[in-house]
Amino acid sequence: MNIIENPKQMQQYSLGMKLQGKSVGFVPTMGFLHQGHLSLMEQAKKENDVVVVSIFVNPTQFGEGEDFDIYPRDFQRDRNLVEGVGADVIFYPQVKDMYPDNYKTYVDVNEITDKLCGASRPGHFRGVTTIVSKLFNMVLPDKAYFGLKDAQQVAVIKQMVKDLNFPVEIIPCPIVREEDGLAMSSRNVNLKDNERKAALVLSRSLFDAQGSIGRGEREASKIRTTITEKITSEPLAKIDYVKVVSGDTLEDLDRLSGNVLIALAVKIGKVRLIDNIMLEV
Amino acid sequence: MNIIENPKQMQQYSLGMKLQGKSVGFVPTMGFLHQGHLSLMEQAKKENDVVVVSIFVNPTQFGEGEDFDIYPRDFQRDRNLVEGVGADVIFYPQVKDMYPDNYKTYVDVNEITDKLCGASRPGHFRGVTTIVSKLFNMVLPDKAYFGLKDAQQVAVIKQMVKDLNFPVEIIPCPIVREEDGLAMSSRNVNLKDNERKAALVLSRSLFDAQGSIGRGEREASKIRTTITEKITSEPLAKIDYVKVVSGDTLEDLDRLSGNVLIALAVKIGKVRLIDNIMLEV
Repeated sequence: MNIIENPKQMQQYSLGMKLQGKSVGFVPTMGFLHQGHLSLMEQAKKENDVVVVSIFVNPTQFGEGEDFDIYPRDFQRDRNLVEGVGADVIFYPQVKDMYPDNYKTYVDVNEITDKLCGASRPGHFRGVTTIVSKLFNMVLPDKAYFGLKDAQQVAVIKQMVKDLNFPVEIIPCPIVREEDGLAMSSRNVNLKDNERKAALVLSRSLFDAQGSIGRGEREASKIRTTITEKITSEPLAKIDYVKVVSGDTLEDLDRLSGNVLIALAVKIGKVRLIDNIMLEV
Repeated sequence: MNIIENPKQMQQYSLGMKLQGKSVGFVPTMGFLHQGHLSLMEQAKKENDVVVVSIFVNPTQFGEGEDFDIYPRDFQRDRNLVEGVGADVIFYPQVKDMYPDNYKTYVDVNEITDKLCGASRPGHFRGVTTIVSKLFNMVLPDKAYFGLKDAQQVAVIKQMVKDLNFPVEIIPCPIVREEDGLAMSSRNVNLKDNERKAALVLSRSLFDAQGSIGRGEREASKIRTTITEKITSEPLAKIDYVKVVSGDTLEDLDRLSGNVLIALAVKIGKVRLIDNIMLEV
């Protein structure tokens, strides 16, 4: 397995693969990999000649006072995991090479970035779309794999790829959960024991909502209320948002129909977690 | 010669060329081609296996009340000229395919877009960087050719390509002038006879400045004043800006040294013209 730190070398590698007619699958990550990331890599491995995994904790997608400094990092651990899956390259650039002095360019997707996590984290998606544009131009993937835990991120990236005509196919992949239901996240490691237990309130409230929709509930406000009450009953949890929206436009729904996304962001102690379910109603 | 209107087909064509190991040279234009454009195509022809010329009057780089509607267009004339140079493809997309309903994504370069033309035309460079990003992702060029009449545009595009890591080399090409010195521009056709004569004040004031720098003048303010007085003496001319700046950063200079850009924007009647000289001092 190759480890490439230099952006130009990464691009040269991918241009070389293209010239050989090889397809490149790409899994962008911020490292501290978990089973969710590994599932993306495994799918990329099945569908491409070559798999590139990037590990880069991207400063521009963290706001003031967010957890950039304490975001977990462990390159040796990540390296072993990526090698275990059989990926071909880890792209592991440094901040100074990705955002050199005199850096000035940003990519913005309007409207759908103002909602959900975009409302709580101004500038977050601008950081995401900018780094993903940069990575796409360096890695030159045919297919890129994103986890649906960040459902809004997937919607934003798909919109950007369509609008800017990137020659990349976006492959959204299902959320991977711990046995007890907690959605896998690199941030879970920052939860203390009692917080880890409290964090189950996210997935449980979503599964409850799924159950009530299965029994015929179609009023978005009722679903929101039920989820909100359940989360509020957990003393360690503080709601950022509970949203019932169209999975296509991310617009609030009154009545559930079509592609429905129920998305949560909840702070458990100091750790902000997100989770969601998507369903066809 | 191929004429391709569909963005997906354009991308497929270029991906095909890449797979064959062929280099692609790209000349983006808004059509109504003149000798300046043709010089870009000729250079592209020398340096690449395949040359793609795009013709698209890009609405997002025109502001309210600017000349989008009266921007000159003549596809048959352009087609013959491009064929004459021996380019391989004209990419001639429609607005509805480039900016479909629900379009939301823009590329912004900060700081250097606030000056010169960016100050007079808010949003202009955002339109330029967005369309150029889109075109790069469709045409997938190895090299792209831009005329130095739009010196700020060249600086902005170079910054964007560096920041977003586009795998494209930007080739700036010299201004091409009419015999009497007027810089070639598609907009020149909108000048009436007396305006055409008055328009010479742009190039003449620049050549005068070049002369005085040759004779040792190094004070930017003196050069600005001389140019301003000369242009003001032409009754049909109305100055938008006269700038003496660093060719690298576009920051105002006090004393001339290094890479110097002297740039003008002047309205002659209703036609806004730009011109510049770059020199190493």
